[in-house]
Amino acid sequence: MVHHDKIKDLNTPCILVDEKVVKNNCKSMIDRANQLGVDIRPHMKTHKTIEIGKYQVEGLKNQRVIVSTLSEAKFFTKAFKDILYAIPISPNKISQAYEIHCEIDRLHLMIDHIDHITSLVNHIKQTNINGKIWSVFLKIDCGYHRAGANPESEETIRLVDLITHGEYSKYFEFQGIYSHSGHSYKCTTPQEIKKLAIQEATVTGSFGKKLLACGYPCPNVSIGSTPVCCHLPDNLKDLGVTEIHPGNYVFYDLMQMELGNCSVDDVGVSVLTTVISVYPDRNEFLVDAGSLALSSDPGCTHLAPNRPTPNFGIIVGHPNLRVLAVTQEIGKIVSTCDNSPIPFDHFKIGTKIRLIPNHSCLTAAMFSHFYVLDSHDDVNGELKSFVPNKHW
Amino acid sequence: MVHHDKIKDLNTPCILVDEKVVKNNCKSMIDRANQLGVDIRPHMKTHKTIEIGKYQVEGLKNQRVIVSTLSEAKFFTKAFKDILYAIPISPNKISQAYEIHCEIDRLHLMIDHIDHITSLVNHIKQTNINGKIWSVFLKIDCGYHRAGANPESEETIRLVDLITHGEYSKYFEFQGIYSHSGHSYKCTTPQEIKKLAIQEATVTGSFGKKLLACGYPCPNVSIGSTPVCCHLPDNLKDLGVTEIHPGNYVFYDLMQMELGNCSVDDVGVSVLTTVISVYPDRNEFLVDAGSLALSSDPGCTHLAPNRPTPNFGIIVGHPNLRVLAVTQEIGKIVSTCDNSPIPFDHFKIGTKIRLIPNHSCLTAAMFSHFYVLDSHDDVNGELKSFVPNKHW
Repeated sequence: MVHHDKIKDLNTPCILVDEKVVKNNCKSMIDRANQLGVDIRPHMKTHKTIEIGKYQVEGLKNQRVIVSTLSEAKFFTKAFKDILYAIPISPNKISQAYEIHCEIDRLHLMIDHIDHITSLVNHIKQTNINGKIWSVFLKIDCGYHRAGANPESEETIRLVDLITHGEYSKYFEFQGIYSHSGHSYKCTTPQEIKKLAIQEATVTGSFGKKLLACGYPCPNVSIGSTPVCCHLPDNLKDLGVTEIHPGNYVFYDLMQMELGNCSVDDVGVSVLTTVISVYPDRNEFLVDAGSLALSSDPGCTHLAPNRPTPNFGIIVGHPNLRVLAVTQEIGKIVSTCDNSPIPFDHFKIGTKIRLIPNHSCLTAAMFSHFYVLDSHDDVNGELKSFVPNKHW
Repeated sequence: MVHHDKIKDLNTPCILVDEKVVKNNCKSMIDRANQLGVDIRPHMKTHKTIEIGKYQVEGLKNQRVIVSTLSEAKFFTKAFKDILYAIPISPNKISQAYEIHCEIDRLHLMIDHIDHITSLVNHIKQTNINGKIWSVFLKIDCGYHRAGANPESEETIRLVDLITHGEYSKYFEFQGIYSHSGHSYKCTTPQEIKKLAIQEATVTGSFGKKLLACGYPCPNVSIGSTPVCCHLPDNLKDLGVTEIHPGNYVFYDLMQMELGNCSVDDVGVSVLTTVISVYPDRNEFLVDAGSLALSSDPGCTHLAPNRPTPNFGIIVGHPNLRVLAVTQEIGKIVSTCDNSPIPFDHFKIGTKIRLIPNHSCLTAAMFSHFYVLDSHDDVNGELKSFVPNKHW
C-alpha cells in the first residue's frame, strides 16, 4: 500500500474519502435508528469497502448488511456473516448464492414472484435435500414500481403462505418484508420526502401488520432509501417498521444536497481532477474527470430550472462552477451564475480541484481505490473497494 | 482463460463481442480511408483490447493508434509503437508521458495552449536535455467547443511558430493538427452529419493549408468522430485532410443506429443479461443490467419524440422493448410501441436476453473481459480489456 503525504502528488482522476465525515455519517444514522427504536441494516453498494462497512455497523449487536450483487456478497463474507442480497434472485445465480449462504451464517435472498420460490425449492431438492434451508425476504412495492410484489394483491399473501405453511415451508426461513423507496430521488422538497417516508412506512408497515394479523411470521419490516431515512417520522415503530436500510448516506453527494438531505459539509467523497486546458474566450475550462470518473448520471434533472441542467458535479469551494458536460475522459467546467467570469488565475492548467459528484454510488464504482483524507486534507491511507464486472 | 461453449452458461451481466462484425467494421473503415486517399489512425478508447486494436490497423503500413489516458497508452505499448494521447497534456502527467515516449517510437502529445508548451519545455530542460524530444499535435476547435485552439485566432498560429521556429523548436517535432467533431452526436439526420463532415474537413483542412502557406510544416491533418467518418465527402483530400481517426465504429451502438451511421447488423457488441423478475400487471420486467453494466448514458435524447426517452438500450430481436430506466444493478424493460403487451412467455424469470447499449464506449469500460461470439453465437474466446481507474 502506497501512502502519499499530499493530495498534490496523486494521479488524477482519483477519488478522495473524508474519513471523519464518513464516520460521522455512519454514526448519525445509527443514532437515528436507535432513537426511533428500529434496527439498521446498512447497504454496502455505495462504497464496497470492508472498512466503511464496519463503520456502518459499529457498536451494533446485529451486524447485518446488504449488497447489490453476489460478487459483492462474496467480497463481504470476509467481514460479515449476515448478508442480504437485495435483488430478486434469478435461477442462474442460485448455485453461487447457495455456496455463499453455506459459507456464512446466512445469505438472505429476495423474492417477489412464485417462480423465485419454485426455483429455490428445485435447487435444494436436486442438490442438497438435507442441507441448509434458504433464508428469504419478500420484496414489497411501496410505490416505486421497480421490484416488489403488490401489497394490495391476494397473490402476495399467497407467496408468504407458500413459504411459511405449505409443502415448501420446510425449505425456507422467512425473514419478513423489505421495500425500497427509490422514487424519493424524484421529490422536489424535504416536505415531499417526509410525506413519502410516512407513505413507505405505512404501506410496508401495514402489510407487515396484516401478515402478523393473519398468523404469519414477519420478524423484519425493513424500509429505506437514504432520502427517506433522512426524514423518518417519529412514530416509525408504531407504523410497523422494525428496521431501516440506507446506503448512500455514508458518502452523500450532490443529489442528496440538492434534495435537502444533507449539507455540503456532510459529503464524504470527492473526485480529485486536474485542469487540462483553459478557454477564457468561451469562459470554460476542461478537467481530466469525465464519464469514466464521475459516471454519466445527470443527477436531479427534475429540479430544473432551479438547478442548472445538465450538470455532473460542482467544484468544492466554488459552487457556482459546475461540470456542464462529461465525455469519456473529460469534464467541461462552466460558470452557472449568469455566466460570471471564471477567475482563471485560480484555475491554471495543472491546477488540482475537487468535484462533488451527482451520484456517489456510481462515481465510487469507477475506482478500485479510495484515498483517505485526514483532518488536514492530507492523504493518510487507501481503501480497496470491490469493483463490479471485473475479473483477472 | 476459461472457454464457454454456450451463452447460456455465462454469468450475467457480461459483454459479448461479435468478432465477425467487429472485423468487418474495422475493414470497412480502412477501405473507406483507402478509397479517399487518406490515412487512418484509429482510436482504442472504445474497446481497450490489444486484439481489436490490431484489427483496426490490419494491413496498414503505418500502425498508428490513439488512446484517451496515459494508463491506456502504457497498456497499448505491448502492441503499438506509435501512440497518440489525444487529450491536452497537463503538467502532472508529463513525467509518465515521457517514460512511455521513451519506451516506444513515439508517444505523441496534444497541446492547445502555450502553458502546455512551456511545461513540456521545462520538463525536458530539467530532466533530459540531451534526450528524446517531444512529438506533438495541435488540437484545433472545429466547432465542437470542447478542447482545441481557435483556428481563426492569430494566437493559434503563434503556438505553431513557437514550436517550429522559436527557441523552443529544438524540443519539438510538430506532427500537425487534429480536430474532433463530437458535436456530430447532436445531429438529427445523416444529411446534417454529412454537412458537419464537410465543415470539419474544411475548417481543419483550411487551417492546415494556411500553416503550409505560411511556411510551417503540417504533415498530418487529422479529423474525425465515428459519425463524421461514416459520411465523409469524396473530396476529403482536396480539402486538406490527410487522415481520419474514428473509434466507436469498431462496435457501433444504439446511438450510431439512431443517428443513421450503421444498421443493427453492424453493431458488434451487446450486453447479456438475465430477467430477474416480471410484473405483467405493470407490463414491465427487470433485468440484471443497470448503470454499472450499461452506463447511465441516456443516448440521443435530442431525437425525442421520435426516439423513446429516456432509454438505455434495446433488446436484440425485440426492438420495441427498451430499457426505460437504469439503477445501479437493475434495468427496467418496457414496451415502447403503444405499450403493447409484452409476450411474457418469452421473458420468464431466468431468461437470458441481449441488449444493445446506447454508448458502447462507456458500456465496454464497465467490463474487464469480453466474450467473443462465433458465427453460431457460441462463445469461443475472451478478450481482456484495459479497465480505467483500477489498480491492484
